[in-house]
Order: sequence, then structure tokens, then C-alpha cells
Amino acid sequence: MTNTDLAKRVYDHAFKLDPIIRSLLDTDIYKLLMLQTIWKEFADIPVTFSLINRNRDIPLSRQIDLGEFREQLDHARTLSLTKKERIWLAGNTFYGQDRLFSSEFIDWLSHYRLPGYELAEVGDQIRIDFHGSWSDITLWEIPVLSIISELRSRSALKRYGRFELDIIYSRAKAKLWEKIVRLKQLPDIRLADFGSRRRHSFLWQNWCVQALRDGLGENFTGTSNTLLAMEHDLDAIGTNAHELPMVLATLAANDEELKYAPYRVLESWQRTYDGNLLVVLPDTFGTTGFLRNAPEWVAGWSGFRIDSKDPVAAGEELMDWWRSRGQDPASKLIIFSDGLDIDSIEMIHRHFLDKARVGFGWGTHLTNDFRGCAPDHNDQLNAFSLVCKVTRANGFPTVKLSDNLEKASGPETAIQRYLDVFGKDQVLHRTVLV
Amino acid sequence: MTNTDLAKRVYDHAFKLDPIIRSLLDTDIYKLLMLQTIWKEFADIPVTFSLINRNRDIPLSRQIDLGEFREQLDHARTLSLTKKERIWLAGNTFYGQDRLFSSEFIDWLSHYRLPGYELAEVGDQIRIDFHGSWSDITLWEIPVLSIISELRSRSALKRYGRFELDIIYSRAKAKLWEKIVRLKQLPDIRLADFGSRRRHSFLWQNWCVQALRDGLGENFTGTSNTLLAMEHDLDAIGTNAHELPMVLATLAANDEELKYAPYRVLESWQRTYDGNLLVVLPDTFGTTGFLRNAPEWVAGWSGFRIDSKDPVAAGEELMDWWRSRGQDPASKLIIFSDGLDIDSIEMIHRHFLDKARVGFGWGTHLTNDFRGCAPDHNDQLNAFSLVCKVTRANGFPTVKLSDNLEKASGPETAIQRYLDVFGKDQVLHRTVLV
Repeated sequence: MTNTDLAKRVYDHAFKLDPIIRSLLDTDIYKLLMLQTIWKEFADIPVTFSLINRNRDIPLSRQIDLGEFREQLDHARTLSLTKKERIWLAGNTFYGQDRLFSSEFIDWLSHYRLPGYELAEVGDQIRIDFHGSWSDITLWEIPVLSIISELRSRSALKRYGRFELDIIYSRAKAKLWEKIVRLKQLPDIRLADFGSRRRHSFLWQNWCVQALRDGLGENFTGTSNTLLAMEHDLDAIGTNAHELPMVLATLAANDEELKYAPYRVLESWQRTYDGNLLVVLPDTFGTTGFLRNAPEWVAGWSGFRIDSKDPVAAGEELMDWWRSRGQDPASKLIIFSDGLDIDSIEMIHRHFLDKARVGFGWGTHLTNDFRGCAPDHNDQLNAFSLVCKVTRANGFPTVKLSDNLEKASGPETAIQRYLDVFGKDQVLHRTVLV
Repeated sequence: MTNTDLAKRVYDHAFKLDPIIRSLLDTDIYKLLMLQTIWKEFADIPVTFSLINRNRDIPLSRQIDLGEFREQLDHARTLSLTKKERIWLAGNTFYGQDRLFSSEFIDWLSHYRLPGYELAEVGDQIRIDFHGSWSDITLWEIPVLSIISELRSRSALKRYGRFELDIIYSRAKAKLWEKIVRLKQLPDIRLADFGSRRRHSFLWQNWCVQALRDGLGENFTGTSNTLLAMEHDLDAIGTNAHELPMVLATLAANDEELKYAPYRVLESWQRTYDGNLLVVLPDTFGTTGFLRNAPEWVAGWSGFRIDSKDPVAAGEELMDWWRSRGQDPASKLIIFSDGLDIDSIEMIHRHFLDKARVGFGWGTHLTNDFRGCAPDHNDQLNAFSLVCKVTRANGFPTVKLSDNLEKASGPETAIQRYLDVFGKDQVLHRTVLV
């Protein structure tokens, strides 16, 4: 018989809610980086963020309890920055830069709480929308996704006994470690955790991050999760996301301004950040068109993040473009973060070795790979393609084309207009898994 | 931050010894079964049990600390049956039989403690001998082996941090579970844990037993470990061992009595036990000779345990012999327990399906398979062939031939005499791994 900690046991009995989000910093750092830019330049633009389930055959509202979902959302709304978190945000060095977050921004953020939401069950799906000013709404993206992801895991695991759970986690640990053993074979790999939004659970992401740190040492460059970065003294890693060009596109008064919107994003970004943070995400309206129309100064940025195009093709296209703009690809950073797993990481790493600096942002298959870990067949443990995107801004529906029209979003007529403006270079139709 | 159980933490600080043997019942049930027979009929025969390392290239005295070894042995010597254990031994049903252990025997056992030992370091090996009356000494076999096995694991694991240990155990759990998944495919398999003596650790054996129970349900027939059988309400499973014929052979006044010694063992056994306990271990001086010379009544016993011969060849030989003695093999039990792992279990199960009732006693590769589980190369986590055998009895060296002369033991001249008496049927020279 082990000795039971009676106090803990009794405390647990009285537990009403096992919170999924325990801190406002339990979000990707890029949301905070973007928020600072948004807050400075575009704070009051009205936006709507909405949940989009790209795998419609997954009956989300049957897999999680809407009451529990609401409790978790409401719990997240009670959170505000703690004193320790404020001090850390202000005093920590990000990307080698002190005071990355201005004291005015941190003051504002200290009073911030997540705003309300509109939640409904529609058939076997969940509809959730967030309406408000961009600076108020944008932070919802990560917590709403990680809450759904973890509620779904919890409900998938309810059928198992304590012993089966032990097996499931042992297998998942062993599985991740096999991947890490393979990563260790890759010379000078640079890899970060990007797995907050679709993680199996917060505690599991926490374990995965420690596994990577232990296994890869200095080659593990950090985590996108701000809270875990703080807790484990890791670098908080992130770039920027599609919402910036998507919203700025809605501000364009005509096609000419629309065409320039992706570069206006970069101008705003550069007013706030510098150095390693100067990473371009070129695919919002198609990478090829973006590169073709880019002003000269874009080639001077530190790197690019490839998100929706075949990684080798996109990397090669990018290197050709750098060379055509008089830049040396070997001095540039290419970040890959789209649906990575160990096989594709190995393949991409080998391909670009000695050609460019490569960084990997490893997401879902890092923090939520329980495939084959259950004693029975349990699809609900598999991650799927759930996103929370800005769907309206400034009174207009937003549009995203990306390099993969399967990932395109927006009304059909608007998509056509954007294709006319940015060029129809999208040819890929890859199946979207996560 | 998790809440630390302060009382537990402080208690752990003051821990001088983490005991490996926590109960006299932490031994194989067949030792207790044999002990009852020995105590009834041969209690005072002087014997010596000695440690024998069959893998001489393993420098045992460099792998474990002799001081710790002595502490663990001395701790085991402080143990005696608890009240709960006495009541359970007296009241439990073994092999469907009530009161298998007589009250006189339990009274005697209640006052029993493990006697002294002689310990020395010889080169890079450990020499340990136990001298005394057979009824006093025989119980040392399992604890001395499981103490060495666990001390060796503990020292092999000292180099790892908490995180690496987590990985090692997760991998070992996943590895065992993969084997259990394969076992579940085998129709009506009957399998028991025989892994006490060379287990990785007590707690690990405890986990393995629960894994098998959870995975195999009724097809998991029990454990040889008496303590675990009691704790988990499982059947305690065991037969008998080579020490019985080895010691009885030393009592023989001439070659004729020597030739009959293996059957005299069975006569003694049958005076104490019945039914499913009537399992013959035929290989002490060679299975083929044993069968050739066996009295008619031996064919009436419930089953045989195959230990040192090729399992398929031995099983077929046995079935032929049963048929030649007018018995139906399909009604007989064949128990396999020699160096089993999942591949050989599958092979044996398929071969004997519908031919005979088969039981598996799965030992070392159940409770101590950490091959490939460490993050680095660590041979010291691999089990090896360590035994504790009766080496002298009644003033004579003991002899064992077995079906595999690699496993033979005794002085060369005595081995020759035994080969002359029992026949030279041993042809196999399989490499002994565990």
C-alpha cells in the first residue's frame, strides 16, 4: 500500500473544474507579438473570429460536452496576467532583444481579459464566434482551440481504466522518444515546439517540451507556448500569421491597395520588430504571386515561413528568388511548420542541408500523436484539422487563398477577386490532415 | 508546481534502505511446496546452495556494491511470516485444494527466518554460499537471485536523470504491451508469470503481473510469486525443481538406487500433493533416459514441465511416450518455462494447439526485458543467466545433467558416473541466454 496524501485526495474531491487554460500566457508567443502590432496600429478594427472544422466528418458536438466547453471558456475569461507574468514579459529577452514588449503595451495587457463569445450547436458541429475589436478578439484563437482539443482527448479517454491509461501514455512517450532518437541523428537540426493549439492536453505538451529539451539539448530552440517558455526558461519562438494580411486586405480601398496589403503588413511589423523576427509568411494569397510582386526590401528580411506549399518546391522557389534578388540563401532562414512529422522533417532537413538555415516548427504530430496508442481502435484520440480564423474584418468577409486551395477560405466571389489581383498560381491540392 | 507531500518527502530523506525483499512470501510458490515435502521427509539433510554465474564475462562484483548486497541480505533475514500471511497460507485454496499446507508446517514456517550466508568477492565475481539443513537453506534461492538482479538494475539506472528514467520505463511498458497484444491473438493460451528470480525489480514485476491480468484476463493463469498472488488475488502457480532429484540422488547407496532417485522424488511428492500438482520435471538427468526407465504409474501423472530441451522436440517425444504408455496426450498438460519470449511462445502454442494442453511459465523476458529501452547502450540492464543451485548434499557434490550439457553441473567424474547410470541422451548444446 502506498501512503495516500489525504489532504490532496480530499482537495481533489472538491475539484469542480480541472482547468485547461491556467494562464493568459498559455498561448503562442506570436499572438502576443501580433497583438502588440495590432494594438499599436489597428486596435479598433471590428473583426469576427470563427471556429472552422476542416474535417466535417468529425462530429465535434457529439465528442465534447457543450456544458464543459462553456465552463472552460468561462474559466479562461477569468484569467488575467499575474504579477510574475508581467515582470517576466517586461524583463525577459526575446529574440536577443530586451524590452520587446513596450511598457505601455504591457500596462494595457495587464488589464486585459478574454471577451465574450457566441456558442451554438449546429447539427453535429459546434459554432463559436467572437465579435469585437481586433485587439480584444485575437487572443481567443489559441485557447479556444486547445480547450476543444483537450476536452476531446478527455472524453476519448473516459472509457479506459487506470491501467489502460498507463499503457496509452507509456506508448505515446515511447513513440515520441523514437522520433527524438531519429531527430538526434540529424546534424545541427533546429527545431521548436509549435504544438499548443492542437495538443492532446496541456500537461502532455509540457511533457513533450521537456522530452525535446532533454533529447535534443541546444538543437531544441524553444517553444511557441509562452507559459511553457517562462516555466522552463526556454526561448519563446514564433513568427506571425495569416490574420495580419487577411485583415489588412479588408482595409484596401481598391485593387492596387489590395495587391500591396501583404507588404503593408511587413511595414507595420518592421516598425515594431527587428532581426530574427523579420520572418515573412508569404502564402496568404499565394507564395508565387507574393514573390513576383514583392518590393526589393522584402528580400532583405531574415527569413520566410513555408506553410501550405510542398516544402521542397517552396524552399527551392524561395532560394531561386533570393538569388534573383542578389541575396545568398545560405544566410537566410527558412521555417517549416506545416503538418510536420518525423519523416518529413528528415526529408526536408536532408534536402536543405548546407543550402539555407532551416528551422522547424513542429506542431500537432509532436503534441498530439496518440495514433495506435490505445488498446482498442479510438479515432477520437487522433488530431484533426480545426482552426479558428478571422472570418470578417472592417465589415467585409476575409479571404485566404494560400498555396493550397483546399485551405482557401472566404466567399466564392471574393476568392475570385483575390485570385484576379494576386495571380492564380495555386496548383496544389494536398489532403489536409492536421 | 505540484503540491509536495511534505511528510512523505521527509520520511524518504530518512530512508536508509529501500528493501528489495519485503516479505518471506516474495518467493516462488514452488519453493514453499517443495519445502513442505522437504520438511516432512528430508528436513535435516545437510546441503550447500551456491550462486553460479553462467555468464562469466559479466563482472558481477563490479556491477553491484557488496555493502548494499549485504544490507539487503541482512534485511531479508529480519523477515518472518506476518499474521496476515499465515492466515492466507492456511486458508487459501491452491490448485483447487484447501489446506494444501498443513497446520504443522505453517506453525514451523511461522518461526522461520532465513539463515546466515558466506559472502566473498573473487576476482570480478561474487561468491555466496549457504550451508545448513535442507529445510533451512532452500528458501534462500529466490531472494538471493532477485536481490542481485534488482541491485544490478538499480546500479545500471544510476546514471540517468528523472526524465530519462521516465522514458526507459515508458518504453519497457510499451514493449511488454506489444507482446501482450500478440498473446491476445493466441486462442485459449494459458500463461503464468514465472519471473520472480531475474526480475528487473519487485515493483516492475508487480506492474508486469497487473499488465498481464489486464491484457489476458482469464488466460492469465497466475503468478509463481506468492506475495503477488496474495496481493492481487491471483492463483499461485508452480511445479517443482531440480533440487529434489539432485539431493535425493546423493542419498542413493548404489547405482540402482541412483537410477531410481528421480522416481523416488515423485513418490515423495505424491504423498504430499495431488491433481494439478502432479507435474513431472523430467530433465534433471536427461529426459529421454527418464522416460525410458520410468515406472508405469509416472504416465498417469497430470503433466510434464519441459525445461532444457528444444520445446517442440521434447513435446513430441513426450506425446509419443504417453501414447506408448496408453495415455491420451490431449488430456495431458505440458508446461514450457525455458527462456520463453513472445516468438517462442507463439511458435510453441501453434505447434501444440489441439494436441495437448499447454501452459507457459514466462520468466525473465516477461519481468526483465529492458533491451533497447535505455537512451544509450547499457548492457547492465540486460538479464543474464544467474542461478543459485544446491551444489552439495549429504556430504557429496550434487550433479545435474539436464538435456543440454551446457547446463550440466557437478564434478567431471560425478557427471561421468551419472551419464553411465542415466544414459547419454543429451545431444543439445544450445546457448544459454537466461
